[in-house]
Amino acid sequence: MTDFFERSLIVHQQLRGKISIHNKMPVITREDLSVAYTPGVARPCEVIAKEKKRAYDLTIKSNSLAVVSDGSAVLGLGNIGPYAAIPVMEGKALLFKEFANIDAWPICLDTQDESEIIETIRRIAPVFGGINLEDIAAPRCFAIEAALQDLGIPVFHDDQHGTAIVLLAALTNAAKVVGRALTEMKIVINGAGAAGTAIAKLLRCVGHAPNACVAVKDVIVCDSRGAIHSGRENLSIEKQELLAYSNPRNVSGRLSTVLEGADVFIGVSKGNLIDADDVRAMGDAPIILAMANPIPEIMPDLAKSAGAAIVGTGRSDFPNQVNNVLAFPGIFRGALDANAERITEKMKMAAVVALAQCVDQPTADKILPDPLDRSVASRVAAAVCKASQV
Amino acid sequence: MTDFFERSLIVHQQLRGKISIHNKMPVITREDLSVAYTPGVARPCEVIAKEKKRAYDLTIKSNSLAVVSDGSAVLGLGNIGPYAAIPVMEGKALLFKEFANIDAWPICLDTQDESEIIETIRRIAPVFGGINLEDIAAPRCFAIEAALQDLGIPVFHDDQHGTAIVLLAALTNAAKVVGRALTEMKIVINGAGAAGTAIAKLLRCVGHAPNACVAVKDVIVCDSRGAIHSGRENLSIEKQELLAYSNPRNVSGRLSTVLEGADVFIGVSKGNLIDADDVRAMGDAPIILAMANPIPEIMPDLAKSAGAAIVGTGRSDFPNQVNNVLAFPGIFRGALDANAERITEKMKMAAVVALAQCVDQPTADKILPDPLDRSVASRVAAAVCKASQV
Repeated sequence: MTDFFERSLIVHQQLRGKISIHNKMPVITREDLSVAYTPGVARPCEVIAKEKKRAYDLTIKSNSLAVVSDGSAVLGLGNIGPYAAIPVMEGKALLFKEFANIDAWPICLDTQDESEIIETIRRIAPVFGGINLEDIAAPRCFAIEAALQDLGIPVFHDDQHGTAIVLLAALTNAAKVVGRALTEMKIVINGAGAAGTAIAKLLRCVGHAPNACVAVKDVIVCDSRGAIHSGRENLSIEKQELLAYSNPRNVSGRLSTVLEGADVFIGVSKGNLIDADDVRAMGDAPIILAMANPIPEIMPDLAKSAGAAIVGTGRSDFPNQVNNVLAFPGIFRGALDANAERITEKMKMAAVVALAQCVDQPTADKILPDPLDRSVASRVAAAVCKASQV
Repeated sequence: MTDFFERSLIVHQQLRGKISIHNKMPVITREDLSVAYTPGVARPCEVIAKEKKRAYDLTIKSNSLAVVSDGSAVLGLGNIGPYAAIPVMEGKALLFKEFANIDAWPICLDTQDESEIIETIRRIAPVFGGINLEDIAAPRCFAIEAALQDLGIPVFHDDQHGTAIVLLAALTNAAKVVGRALTEMKIVINGAGAAGTAIAKLLRCVGHAPNACVAVKDVIVCDSRGAIHSGRENLSIEKQELLAYSNPRNVSGRLSTVLEGADVFIGVSKGNLIDADDVRAMGDAPIILAMANPIPEIMPDLAKSAGAAIVGTGRSDFPNQVNNVLAFPGIFRGALDANAERITEKMKMAAVVALAQCVDQPTADKILPDPLDRSVASRVAAAVCKASQV
């Protein structure tokens, strides 16, 4: 792994920016200049001045995204600030272009104040067709996304929903492989941040989309203090809200206790958190999705030797990589194609189903398509676009 | 001219955005993904987290600009708002790429409040190496630019300084053609907005740069009520400030009166404002730079027939086109190459001198290089870069 890090530093030094601007028309003649700029450009300006919506036909708006971060929760590095976040946002823009032909630009904000972030995004919105929120710490990320749903363009926090969508697609196919219904499974999510909360939320929607199973009932979310249950004191508002759709049996106790008899472990927390005994204490042939990066909550070999039927991680060097890149390009492509004003739960579930269906015959080592599979984004986009118009 | 407008509308409809994102590295293999994005990208992030300045080596920052407008003074169209301003900002980004290989992104702000614009630019600054302010109404544009000079990256209002620089280069060569010193000329500027004010300010600096003549003393600025002089009531703060370096003889009266005996007319106002009699009343063989767009303050043929020695306009269909594109690409290229924190008067004057010198042998019909001349931006950039380091 170290190798990737040093190679990455060298590549970043050589490129000084992974993306650049490309001109879609030449500026060779005086006529080019008069058409692209003054005086000719006044004409499309006048048309948009009369009817704002025409910005979608006449400018980059219909194909452009802002990838916005405040640098407060970057990868596993934490609060490293807006400057250090730039390489990640550039990388995201690179992937949007590569997989969905979307023109995304990094915006790294020199503020970590919730209301300042909200008002700044409102102010810069006109030129963008959507806002991809990225690497913003919880619970601020929830409030920012919620406050901006009236902006008129999709505002989507990828660390929440991108992760939840890919994970739920993985789980859909894993359930198929083990031949059991997702609804009957006991699911334990460890990590109550952006991703963990979004996964718990989206599990409520299972069954609302065609071809998916009916709602999952037994989901328990744990944080560093164990199961989130109604008897706990000083729960944040976000964690109190989680109780509305998790822990129906009001289980208490630490993760090891809660895992006893569970069918699915979803880790969005930190490395080496569970051991072989924890896996053995789970139900028969459990499903383990251990997404901590770069070190998973349990290494795949160890989990398998302890009886896990299927193991997925966030890493590319093991089978079943749960990687957001399977979701965000297609989701925004579909939303932009539909001129959608927001990304609804229905659109997210359509993405889950389309993504799961990208694997023809799921097996224990193949519950998700390859992150580099070029056909995934267009299949997800088509499903998302269709779901937005129903 | 109408032709340009309709062709521009068609081109804008076809392109749906004149610029797009170009990826500088491929994402074909798993290794590409691991280097460009997770996990490898964590390494450059860590380096920048330790030392913010490294963002210049490792990201797009060293070559990127925001082209920022609030849509309040777009071309001659006025306050058409941020959506209708997008085609102009895209056009500007297109020209930055074409002439100076700079990656510029349009930011159109959904606010016209001065302090909100200032704070928004501060917040989005981390990813950018410079800020090009564009089509923001006076006097707000002055205050915004002044407030942001401590940002650590160049903040430059092109409508002020870009215009002033090109105009002063034109005037430098025009003086050479008529064989008279710029210092001895009586100059009348009509228009006390962004461009007029910047021209008057920059005329103070003539002589501070090597190879330029000494300071111009007799400059009078007129607004719609005539000469700005100390006896006028209710002058705005900006116009009061103008008196510190204009109208030394404290002349009063309307434009026609003020023009009597003048050597240079600079129009940054509106079309058909002066006539042949006005030109005849000026000094011998006057210089007319009539920049109103698309209709100049006086048409070149009329001015010539009334005795003007040299006429320049903003239009591409007459000789001596005063076009900002001669200045802004080279100025920002030079500033970015120098990692300059701001664009100083010395850098602006270096641009004036370099731009004037791009014409080997100035004549009455050739006081400026062709706006499409590819060598101009690099010559201006070299001079600006050097001036920033002295």
